[in-house]
Amino acid sequence: MIYLDNNATTKVDEEVLNAMLPYLKEEYGNPSSTYSFGKDIKEKVNEARNNVARLLNCNPDNIIFTSCGSESNATAIMNAIKLNPNKKHIITTKVEHASIIETMGYLEREGYEITFLEVDDKGRLDLEELKKEITPDTCLISVMMANNEIGNIYPIKEIAKIAKENNIIMHTDAVQAAGKIKIDVEDLNVDMLSISGHKINVPKGIGILYVRDKKFIPLIFGHQEKNRRGGTENVPYIIGLGKSCEMIINDNYKKSEEEKVLRDYMESEIKKNIEDVFIYGDLDNRTPNTSSIAFKNVKADELMLVLESFGVLVSTGSACNSELAVPSHVLTACHANLEEYSPIRVSLGKYTTKEEIDQFIKTLINVVKMLRSKVK
Amino acid sequence: MIYLDNNATTKVDEEVLNAMLPYLKEEYGNPSSTYSFGKDIKEKVNEARNNVARLLNCNPDNIIFTSCGSESNATAIMNAIKLNPNKKHIITTKVEHASIIETMGYLEREGYEITFLEVDDKGRLDLEELKKEITPDTCLISVMMANNEIGNIYPIKEIAKIAKENNIIMHTDAVQAAGKIKIDVEDLNVDMLSISGHKINVPKGIGILYVRDKKFIPLIFGHQEKNRRGGTENVPYIIGLGKSCEMIINDNYKKSEEEKVLRDYMESEIKKNIEDVFIYGDLDNRTPNTSSIAFKNVKADELMLVLESFGVLVSTGSACNSELAVPSHVLTACHANLEEYSPIRVSLGKYTTKEEIDQFIKTLINVVKMLRSKVK
Repeated sequence: MIYLDNNATTKVDEEVLNAMLPYLKEEYGNPSSTYSFGKDIKEKVNEARNNVARLLNCNPDNIIFTSCGSESNATAIMNAIKLNPNKKHIITTKVEHASIIETMGYLEREGYEITFLEVDDKGRLDLEELKKEITPDTCLISVMMANNEIGNIYPIKEIAKIAKENNIIMHTDAVQAAGKIKIDVEDLNVDMLSISGHKINVPKGIGILYVRDKKFIPLIFGHQEKNRRGGTENVPYIIGLGKSCEMIINDNYKKSEEEKVLRDYMESEIKKNIEDVFIYGDLDNRTPNTSSIAFKNVKADELMLVLESFGVLVSTGSACNSELAVPSHVLTACHANLEEYSPIRVSLGKYTTKEEIDQFIKTLINVVKMLRSKVK
Repeated sequence: MIYLDNNATTKVDEEVLNAMLPYLKEEYGNPSSTYSFGKDIKEKVNEARNNVARLLNCNPDNIIFTSCGSESNATAIMNAIKLNPNKKHIITTKVEHASIIETMGYLEREGYEITFLEVDDKGRLDLEELKKEITPDTCLISVMMANNEIGNIYPIKEIAKIAKENNIIMHTDAVQAAGKIKIDVEDLNVDMLSISGHKINVPKGIGILYVRDKKFIPLIFGHQEKNRRGGTENVPYIIGLGKSCEMIINDNYKKSEEEKVLRDYMESEIKKNIEDVFIYGDLDNRTPNTSSIAFKNVKADELMLVLESFGVLVSTGSACNSELAVPSHVLTACHANLEEYSPIRVSLGKYTTKEEIDQFIKTLINVVKMLRSKVK
């Protein structure tokens, strides 16, 4: 199997798993317990929190452990509106993750006005457009840091500056940025930021929400996480997430650079060997591992299935939307000509090797040729 | 170590861990992915769902996987009020878990009227009192199925009947009941029911919410769980929870009966050997594993610490409240004389042996004697 769908989810790192295992076995105490079998575990949870905080350049107190990126996103949005009960307008984009779009849809039904910013053909935002949409009623701007389908990196620092100038809470969904590009919350000056563990080689079921402000209204009430997130801590996954953050810090994004070199090599080889290739997104400003690549007159769904039969796993968009038989909202927002150019998403990971990419290219060349000859 | 704090959390069962491990290693696909590396995992998730549904006697479609009991509780309460925007009154009790009490506190600040039902000295509810509190404005009754501190089992079937007669949504927090006593949602006729994995030998970080009705508004938005709970599924823990439910079904509560025999033996031996012992709660109607037991003039905090030094772990109440230096709200609600009789909570688990209980009793007798002689 050649796994090239790391934006959907990633393999748990062996070091991460090994760090977790004691907490799935003998170290099962409740971190809230007052005896040392619990207190020692709480210390380990806080060590993990320190590593997350180091990765994001913030105080550990600003880190809340959640169960996933979607929870972090819902918590951030609901917190912003609860803190501003009199403001009823939110600005976001047309290319956000389903967890944001769906929350906004709910709020629209509840009477909120939501501005979904348009993007251009390359999926880029127009910050002048953003400025024009701000009203005194705007309580939140939520823009993703990196897109899951096309990989675009959005200018969060600039957007946060606009938000701050207008006294608006700024949130960014950094689920697809974490581990791939540097995230410094001080430099970005965002109020809230979401991360998910399973995109950085930690199991599915852990996330974090960075929260700058002391004023905060939980989504899930209880005494854990300093009264900001109830529920007994998912100790094993928290330990795993801490380990993963530590590894990213130590690696200092060298792996990401290698992925970029490999991704660029892949795209260039593909273009050399296949005619009529189109790559979606902002090519100069993408996450280093992502390629949304289309082959004229080759249906992505079909291509994906045939590639799977050769043991190569790619996707046609966000896994979270896969059950909906509708075109990707991200590509639609980019005015994609999906009839002619429907893309597969190839997303590399830290375990992707040059040999795998070469094998993938070879397979792809043959499969595209085969599918195109079928068309004729 | 003799671990007698199973109401705080439990050791992960080895069979549960073994069922989980492949999904922490090679089976890391995203269940929402359309290729078989994902789809096969989705099937496993649904097998787990079937086992949960079998345990609760419901349709698998009524089961939503969440990240913990606290999330299930928050989701249930917020769903009930969102479905009834014009009703502003909720009935609950003074002995609920922190996740319920804190959510209700938030709603009170938001303008809701919350009735916290009183309990008697044995922690029992008066259903006539409950009936009197119902108004046309009542949208939700939320009463726990079993108490975490004193073990009381509440008459959920009777309460749900009252709720139904008055067209009120009925939720029960069954976190402390699961695995200990039979839960049949059809028989109980509740609308929503919460369960947590880590109380039944599954890791911390997984829960379920049973929801009867198709009309449901999520707390965390997204496409997973049939649009009822966003976030990539915590596959390993879901598989573990399914395995644990299967084991409970196969065991058919024999383990619970054994725990009850052991708990009753323990209490009787303690009373035989120590003077002035008081056991809190509804002694004839408790979860089989729980004993809230006090020794006149012996401070529970001190007793707990000394027992810990002998390798015996008990608690003085809910772990979730442990950081608050306030008396337990449950015991306060029971009008406990905490000056004279402050209880330790002893909660047995499936691994507790007769030998451990005998060792505990021996230690306890000596420690209580020592602490009492210090007082004099």
